[in-house]
Amino acid sequence: MPKIDSMPSTERNTAQNELGQRYREYQSRNISLDMTRGKPCPAQLDLSLGMLDGACSRLYRAQDGTDCRNYGGLDGIPEAKALFADYMEVAPEELIIGGNSSLTLMHDAMAWAVLFGVAAGSSPWGRQGHVKFLCPSPGYDRHFAICEHLGIEMIPVAMKADGPDMQVVEQLAAGDAAVKGIWCVPKYSNPTGAVYSDDVVERLAAMPVKAPDFRIFWDNAYTVHHLGGAPARLASILTACRKSGHPDRVLLFGSTSKVSFSGSGLAFMAGSPANMAWAKNHLGFQTIGPDKLSQLRHVAFFKDMAGVLQHMQKHAAILKPKFDAVLEVLERELGGKGVAEWTRPTGGYFISIDTPPGCARRVVQMATEAGVRLTPAGAPYPYQKDPLDRNIRIAPSFPSVADIRMATEVLGICIQLARLEKLEGK
Amino acid sequence: MPKIDSMPSTERNTAQNELGQRYREYQSRNISLDMTRGKPCPAQLDLSLGMLDGACSRLYRAQDGTDCRNYGGLDGIPEAKALFADYMEVAPEELIIGGNSSLTLMHDAMAWAVLFGVAAGSSPWGRQGHVKFLCPSPGYDRHFAICEHLGIEMIPVAMKADGPDMQVVEQLAAGDAAVKGIWCVPKYSNPTGAVYSDDVVERLAAMPVKAPDFRIFWDNAYTVHHLGGAPARLASILTACRKSGHPDRVLLFGSTSKVSFSGSGLAFMAGSPANMAWAKNHLGFQTIGPDKLSQLRHVAFFKDMAGVLQHMQKHAAILKPKFDAVLEVLERELGGKGVAEWTRPTGGYFISIDTPPGCARRVVQMATEAGVRLTPAGAPYPYQKDPLDRNIRIAPSFPSVADIRMATEVLGICIQLARLEKLEGK
Repeated sequence: MPKIDSMPSTERNTAQNELGQRYREYQSRNISLDMTRGKPCPAQLDLSLGMLDGACSRLYRAQDGTDCRNYGGLDGIPEAKALFADYMEVAPEELIIGGNSSLTLMHDAMAWAVLFGVAAGSSPWGRQGHVKFLCPSPGYDRHFAICEHLGIEMIPVAMKADGPDMQVVEQLAAGDAAVKGIWCVPKYSNPTGAVYSDDVVERLAAMPVKAPDFRIFWDNAYTVHHLGGAPARLASILTACRKSGHPDRVLLFGSTSKVSFSGSGLAFMAGSPANMAWAKNHLGFQTIGPDKLSQLRHVAFFKDMAGVLQHMQKHAAILKPKFDAVLEVLERELGGKGVAEWTRPTGGYFISIDTPPGCARRVVQMATEAGVRLTPAGAPYPYQKDPLDRNIRIAPSFPSVADIRMATEVLGICIQLARLEKLEGK
Repeated sequence: MPKIDSMPSTERNTAQNELGQRYREYQSRNISLDMTRGKPCPAQLDLSLGMLDGACSRLYRAQDGTDCRNYGGLDGIPEAKALFADYMEVAPEELIIGGNSSLTLMHDAMAWAVLFGVAAGSSPWGRQGHVKFLCPSPGYDRHFAICEHLGIEMIPVAMKADGPDMQVVEQLAAGDAAVKGIWCVPKYSNPTGAVYSDDVVERLAAMPVKAPDFRIFWDNAYTVHHLGGAPARLASILTACRKSGHPDRVLLFGSTSKVSFSGSGLAFMAGSPANMAWAKNHLGFQTIGPDKLSQLRHVAFFKDMAGVLQHMQKHAAILKPKFDAVLEVLERELGGKGVAEWTRPTGGYFISIDTPPGCARRVVQMATEAGVRLTPAGAPYPYQKDPLDRNIRIAPSFPSVADIRMATEVLGICIQLARLEKLEGK
């Protein structure tokens, strides 16, 4: 396949005419496809329906006799803590089970840091003047939104295939006491699918930091969300931090939002016993306890980690063909043409595409006008600004395989057209 | 019955001996009773078990087709908003359904006020120097804990039978721009059972306030929690505020924690459309949405307000005999003796006892030593300080009637002994 950039102008014109015709044809079909949000499809949600039935839903007593219908229990019932400590790869005393949303736990932990400081005796970030956070990018838009909302300056750091650019991270963390932490999605990262290497985990844990109240926000959102191949290995950041003499440096987060139900799952925060005591202190002012009936239902349905992993294979069986469809159509439309690079994730919820610089916004606009909604260009960057205007995030979990094929084809056409426009200097 | 204070000393000695003997007898029985927390008893929780069964628990589609197992829906599904807008006596667009805890919504609303201000363009309370809140007392300890945690100075205001002392409230609110609001439990108040009169509601809504960002935190926790008699009438603060030209002055809160399940109910925030837009803006950074399956279950189980009110009659049938037991034993032990006054609430979860000044801590200590745990004296006051050391809060919902009788008898003995000690100048 010839590279578009090096085509002679006649060939380029022919290509442009053909692509333009295909584009207009799609436009005339009035399609309406949505590839914006990483949410499970109904077939995935059906996998957990048993949780709402019979034995599971009628349960109300925990193994220790606790009546889960009543108040109390700030950090979770013992059997749920046991199972989901396994899930988060921590000890039960290093885990808090919160409500239905890990986003809430992350937001609240950051709000506590701003209002009260990250530990007893620590100065609130909100009283330290200008405070900054490192944001590996592209990353998760809602992480960045929390920082922006709380007035924390975001510093973008490039994401590589094995995690953030550690040279930059180390330099910024060691050099500036205003740098208070870093956002990380360490496994099947949103949106690139990157898995942090052992070296990156080790360096994050061990690196010197100028701020004594530096915190890694470790959003392990996709810890068991493999796409069916061999599960990626991720080193334990908590163990690494402990070994490096920085046991309190990391706060871990996770949820079953993409394991059971996306609005009715369980959310987790984990970390050192000191950090958990800090979190429980603040949590104690804002709630009498989480929904323990939901915890019981989850334990009754999954039983143990083997049960969770078996369940995730069923998710993978649904998701894999959708990811394959995107990759197949991208290869067919764009392979060898030199106008885009994309990730081939082995887990998670996204495929990340890099177009030539300056094309992403135009591509998203053109796709929208042909009835294919994509995540706004720039969304996965701090302040919604992709400095090179090149990244496009694809969320293939929700639509059908047929719709995904069509949407990806439209996307492929738009990327080529946008590049051709650019070459013409439009 | 002779008043203890005016007994001749020989009679007083006799009384003291008899009471001391009864007290020691209870001590020797090694009883262990807990009258501390206003939580429902198992029989009350059983009333909602149908919500976990069959038809209710397997539902997942809202009437508008929303798949409630998935992400989304920041303020609640339409049928739940319709039902619980009735419950909160507001319009659906004046309501947000949050997670499982109104305490969380109250905490978060106050944290937003501190971090961001109470409206777009309003200065954050946290940047206005010293900020104060009016706290009708005795009141709800967890309200006061939120203020203390967030560094907001609490100003106690006396609770009367028809609400807070409005002369004092009006004077403080009108005179000091640092006074940013007031906590209110307007119906069957915790712990006195007071119901705010129309006049109090009207004055709260209409009074001039010096702070432009003054907010009434209206925790209508017991709105349908009658004890079986005629329901108390509470005027609509939202309507009153609107009529007075202060539509944004009040934030209302409520929950089904004492209607359905205490850890798995629904929580509500309500207020003017401007206030709801403010809340949804901040909520949008911290969650993708509440547990919609729980909302569906609640609607399927209660159906409408008639269903809720019918259900609350079953709660009342369980609770009324417990309140009656407390009142009967208090009357028998203390009636006419001039050593205590107590409330006779027609709803809610508490009975409030006033001993002679300086006795409450001693009474709670003596009761504890006889195996009866009471809420720590002072707990219902800002900074846990009852200025007169006289108030004791009784929570009769959880224990059995037999246990309540015993615990109240011990309490009655302790109150008399404490007063006798005091008279002896011990």
